[in-house]
Amino acid sequence: MESRRRDDRTAALELLDRLLPVTGRSVRVAVSGAPGAGKSTLIEALGMHVVDGGSSIAVLAIDPTSRRSGGSILGDKTRMSELSRRHEAFVRPTPAGDALGGVAHRTREALLLCEAAGFDVVLVETVGIGQSETAVVDLVDTFVLLVAPGGGDELQGIKRGVMELADVVAVTKVDGDLRAPGERAAADVAAALRFVRPRLAAWAPVVTTVSSFERSGLAELWTNVLEHRTRLVETGELDRLRAEQAVTWFREELTGELLALVRARVGAARIDEIERQVRDTRTSPARAARALVERLDQPST
Amino acid sequence: MESRRRDDRTAALELLDRLLPVTGRSVRVAVSGAPGAGKSTLIEALGMHVVDGGSSIAVLAIDPTSRRSGGSILGDKTRMSELSRRHEAFVRPTPAGDALGGVAHRTREALLLCEAAGFDVVLVETVGIGQSETAVVDLVDTFVLLVAPGGGDELQGIKRGVMELADVVAVTKVDGDLRAPGERAAADVAAALRFVRPRLAAWAPVVTTVSSFERSGLAELWTNVLEHRTRLVETGELDRLRAEQAVTWFREELTGELLALVRARVGAARIDEIERQVRDTRTSPARAARALVERLDQPST
Repeated sequence: MESRRRDDRTAALELLDRLLPVTGRSVRVAVSGAPGAGKSTLIEALGMHVVDGGSSIAVLAIDPTSRRSGGSILGDKTRMSELSRRHEAFVRPTPAGDALGGVAHRTREALLLCEAAGFDVVLVETVGIGQSETAVVDLVDTFVLLVAPGGGDELQGIKRGVMELADVVAVTKVDGDLRAPGERAAADVAAALRFVRPRLAAWAPVVTTVSSFERSGLAELWTNVLEHRTRLVETGELDRLRAEQAVTWFREELTGELLALVRARVGAARIDEIERQVRDTRTSPARAARALVERLDQPST
Repeated sequence: MESRRRDDRTAALELLDRLLPVTGRSVRVAVSGAPGAGKSTLIEALGMHVVDGGSSIAVLAIDPTSRRSGGSILGDKTRMSELSRRHEAFVRPTPAGDALGGVAHRTREALLLCEAAGFDVVLVETVGIGQSETAVVDLVDTFVLLVAPGGGDELQGIKRGVMELADVVAVTKVDGDLRAPGERAAADVAAALRFVRPRLAAWAPVVTTVSSFERSGLAELWTNVLEHRTRLVETGELDRLRAEQAVTWFREELTGELLALVRARVGAARIDEIERQVRDTRTSPARAARALVERLDQPST
C-alpha cells in the first residue's frame, strides 16, 4: 500500500476497493498541536486509556517534515514505546510523500486498512504547521487540538485557521507550576472559541485540561471525543460528513492525477519555466494555463 | 472580457497579455462582511472619501448569490448611486460565473483592466459567506473585514476562517444606540485577534470603528489600509505576495481547464455518476480518479 511503484499502486487500489465494504466502523480522531504541545506523550497516555478501557487503537502519524529528517519513523516508534508494546495497539508513521496532499491521502488509505483490520479507534497525529490540519480534517470524524500553556499573552503557537477546525481543545501540561497558567489558557481558549463558528451546528467546541505526567483529564478528554462522535451519529451528520470527505478526496485525487499527466506530457522543467513567467507577469496565468491544456488535448506523441 | 464565448475568450486573453505591462500600480483592497454588516453603504462612503481626496476608484463586486437572484447588477448600481455619479469612480458587479473560483478569476481580470485604465484604487466587495473571502484574498493587497455590533454574546455572522484573513477590521454602525455595543464589539474583536496569526509578520491586524451614517471613522479606516499597503511595499512583501498570487491563479486556472477537459471528454453525467459511487463507498476515490485520467490519456475520439 505504501509502495510508490505504479504496478504496486494498481494492486493497492484493488485491495482498497475490496476492503471498502468492511470499513467505516472505527472512531476516527485527529490529534494536532504545535511542536512542544506534548503531542506524542499525550497520545501515548490517551492510547493507554483507550486500550485499558478494552478498545483497540491504531495510531497513524502525518509528519510533513519527516521526509527531510528521515528519522521520524524510528523516533515515533520509540517515543510511544509503552503503547507500542500493547497488542491492542498499532503505531505507525505515514511514509513521507512528495506533496502534503499526497501524504494525507496515503494516510487515509492506511486508516481504511486499520478499520478493515478491526481497530475500534484510529487516531491520526499531525504536527501543527497549519496546512496539514486542513488536510487531516478531511480524514476524521473528530478533530482534537492540543495547546500548551504559553508564557506570555498569546496562546503558544496556534496557527491561523487551526482553532476553527477543533471540535475538542485540550490544554496540555496542566500540572505543577503550569497548573495556574494552564487553567488561564483554557479560559482564554474558551473565550476565543466564542468567535469561531463551530464545524457543526449541533456541537459547540469544548475545552478541557490534561496532564500526561499525572495522567489526569484523559478520561474527560476521551469522553468529549466520544460525545462528539455520538452527536454526529444522532444527527445523521456522520454519514453526510463521510460522504463529503469521500467526494473531496476523489476531486483531490483527480486533480493530482491530472497534474501528474501534464507533468509527464510537458515536462516538469517546462512547467517551472511557465510558473516563472507567470510570477514575473510576463504572461497571464489564464493564458498560460489554457496553452498547457490545449497541448494536452492532442493525441499522445 | 466578460463573455463566455470561447472565441471571445481567446481575444480576452490576448488583450490581458498586452495590458499586463501597465498593470500592478493600483491599491488593491477587498472589503468583506456578512449580510447586514452595512457593506454597500460603507463602501460608498469610503469611495466618496477616496475620490474627495483626489484619487480615482473602481469598485468590483463578487456576489456568488447574484446568479440566482439575477437582480444584483441593477441593485448595486442603484445602491451606490452617489458614488456612481462621480466620474472618478466606476462601480461594477462581476458577472455571475458557474463556479466561485471562476467568479474570482473573472474579477481578477476585471481588476487588471481597471488598473490598466489608470484607477488609483481597485476595491473588491465580497459577500461574507466564507468561501468567497478565501478566494478574494488572493486578488488583493489588503483585506478589510466589516463587522456589525451584535445583540448578544457573539460577534454577528463572522464565518469561520474569515477573521484570520483580515488585515484591517472595521466595526460598522458605531453611532446612536449602537455606539456602546460597537465599542464593545471592537474590544472583543481586538481580543479575538490576539489568537490569530497575522498574514504578515510585519503587520498586526488593526481594529477601527466607523459610521457610514455619521461619516465618521472613514479617514482612519482608509489610513489603516494605506499604512498596511506601505508596510507591504517597505518590506518587499508586496512583490512577493503578488508573484505568489499569480502562481496560485495559474494553478487554479490549470486545474479548472483540466477538469473542463475531463468533463468534455467523459461527460458531466458520467462524472456525477462516479461521484455518487464514491459518496456511497461503492468505489474508492483514488481508483475512480485514476480510471478517469487513464481514459483521458488516450487520443481523442
